[in-house]
Amino acid sequence: MQRSLKTPRTTLKRTHERGAYEREEVYGVLDAGLFCHVGYVDDGQPLVTPTAYWRLGDELVIHGSSASRMVRVLAAGAAACVTVTHVDGLVMARSAFHHSVNFRSVMVLGKARPVENPDEKITKLKGLIERITPGRWALLRPHTEQEIKATAVLVFAIDEASAKIRTGPPIDDEEDYGLPIWAGVVPLAQRPGTPTPCPRLDRDMAVPDHIVALTID
Amino acid sequence: MQRSLKTPRTTLKRTHERGAYEREEVYGVLDAGLFCHVGYVDDGQPLVTPTAYWRLGDELVIHGSSASRMVRVLAAGAAACVTVTHVDGLVMARSAFHHSVNFRSVMVLGKARPVENPDEKITKLKGLIERITPGRWALLRPHTEQEIKATAVLVFAIDEASAKIRTGPPIDDEEDYGLPIWAGVVPLAQRPGTPTPCPRLDRDMAVPDHIVALTID
Repeated sequence: MQRSLKTPRTTLKRTHERGAYEREEVYGVLDAGLFCHVGYVDDGQPLVTPTAYWRLGDELVIHGSSASRMVRVLAAGAAACVTVTHVDGLVMARSAFHHSVNFRSVMVLGKARPVENPDEKITKLKGLIERITPGRWALLRPHTEQEIKATAVLVFAIDEASAKIRTGPPIDDEEDYGLPIWAGVVPLAQRPGTPTPCPRLDRDMAVPDHIVALTID
Repeated sequence: MQRSLKTPRTTLKRTHERGAYEREEVYGVLDAGLFCHVGYVDDGQPLVTPTAYWRLGDELVIHGSSASRMVRVLAAGAAACVTVTHVDGLVMARSAFHHSVNFRSVMVLGKARPVENPDEKITKLKGLIERITPGRWALLRPHTEQEIKATAVLVFAIDEASAKIRTGPPIDDEEDYGLPIWAGVVPLAQRPGTPTPCPRLDRDMAVPDHIVALTID
């Protein structure tokens, strides 16, 4: 298994100091997120679909209704791009031009493998629940055969990818630093709020630890 | 100007009760966000690039370095899909199958028009700064001709689009509601934190109102 995920197609041509191609760096960005945007082409039209993802070893996994357009196109072997983006801050500079964004993003290129084996499907789907809420899978109403059949699981081998990362304060033109203009970073983060119980839940049921402990990033 | 943005290509085939096609609905989702994912094809490979966007009237605007791959491909007239996604909550159900996500997303299909006129470019770029921090544009070091030249501005007419929205509690199988399994929604939101001043900023400079007031959504 090669460590570097760099290929001509994933090599940053501009701002190359922001690029990273080692598995550890790419996986660090992937493991901080829950949602990706999947790009593919249907009938000549590029489409970008938001969906949940999770990483299991050297594979990135997504799922969907077997009847969905995205699943149909990807399962047929279409080329795809899976992009994960964390926006970490708005970078406010002294000139409009040097305004920027602190972010971490990853692009994974490849074709999906549809998981056909029901046991492998179940193992993969368990991975999603356990990635978000460790311990929850065992507490749920057991899945049915029909539910597994209706759910498509698609796997991307992570072989060709790049990460792109910007951090830090604004970089202004040297002669602009003395100007009386506020500059800095406004941090942004996606945070979980207070859980809202289902209206049909027994009112005395406590919020379980795996929900209380839920964090992102 | 037609009110509905529904076309055969933007019509939801499944979960159609979650689809919305009126301009007001689509604009509501667009105006709550700052970042989109742009899908396009370069040399047969779909690519998805995260970038800032803003809406001006019936147009969605993005910008980038004139030297970037995305700008080069889009300016040449490639078909594109711009997707905006807000993740509002993780929906925890009593079965793995009925777990879901509360979200608002919009897909805009079309081809970009590169803005060539420098005055139109400046007006559009001002729109980005003013959308995030009203009043800031006038306080910045004035832009230079070279900066405007180096910045590409691309405009999508919003003519073909759809919004997709899920809200509310988990929808479980009727016979599962009585099970002793915690179910509900964990809300998620992207929130700005405390601004970090640039290390080279005069320590006595107060954080201006347009930064303090910055909100998303």
